Amino acid sequence: VAHENSEGGWSPQGPVDELSDRASWELLASTNLGRLALSLDGRPDIFPVNYWANARSLIFRTAAGAKLHELTDNEFVAFEVDAILTDGAWSVVAKGTASVLGTEPSLTEKALASFPPWVPVQPFVYVEISVDSIRGRRFQRHLHVQLRE
Amino acid sequence: VAHENSEGGWSPQGPVDELSDRASWELLASTNLGRLALSLDGRPDIFPVNYWANARSLIFRTAAGAKLHELTDNEFVAFEVDAILTDGAWSVVAKGTASVLGTEPSLTEKALASFPPWVPVQPFVYVEISVDSIRGRRFQRHLHVQLRE
Repeated sequence: VAHENSEGGWSPQGPVDELSDRASWELLASTNLGRLALSLDGRPDIFPVNYWANARSLIFRTAAGAKLHELTDNEFVAFEVDAILTDGAWSVVAKGTASVLGTEPSLTEKALASFPPWVPVQPFVYVEISVDSIRGRRFQRHLHVQLRE
Repeated sequence: VAHENSEGGWSPQGPVDELSDRASWELLASTNLGRLALSLDGRPDIFPVNYWANARSLIFRTAAGAKLHELTDNEFVAFEVDAILTDGAWSVVAKGTASVLGTEPSLTEKALASFPPWVPVQPFVYVEISVDSIRGRRFQRHLHVQLRE
């Protein structure tokens, strides 16, 4: 059986190293694009968002729309970031609660620089995720084996 | 203000093209790694999974654990796949319901080849997502502009 794996030979089901909270936060701080999972009336939803990792929280911005509606209705969120490396991949999932900071929160230059310089069609709303739990995993690259049928 | 954007100058908040259902399915079929969003008692969760895109459904496998527990408790799921291109990025979100196919469903060689050749520690359980709605978007790469303070 020939096996293909377009993601460079790693898999969430392969050899995994669990990462410390500190290592997980360092990975969260190393990039600025993640996926936000929300749930409204038991229906999950998922959105790609740019974010900034603060000490124990994540900040992202959005505009009026489904995302904002869903998270103000149910504050519980999950947030995932991953990256593919030459020798495998990593994924960090943070869970917590979201709270709306408003349209002009007091953020540092560095935080604001994490967000791309779009001129908004409507005002951005900044949202902070207070992280209650974090789980980081590193997936090892696997060898492509030829299985005998 | 200097703006950084480690994701190659695109953003979910930048210029967006909405894609047709057909184009969205073609993108889903072009790769085999996505993120599954589940919700248990209103608490969203998110998992990276390998998958295979069928005609109007997605198939992935998992083992006994949180993921399987959550999706048998609440069948509603959202599934996201994205990729970064030289001239931007795309993201497809599929929503639907999950049903457990069992440990040895009748799948084609081609479908099985989408999954990496791990020898499982415990039996894999295959799960099918019947997709009710799909939304694909293409994000254009933006120019790095220098804003005057």
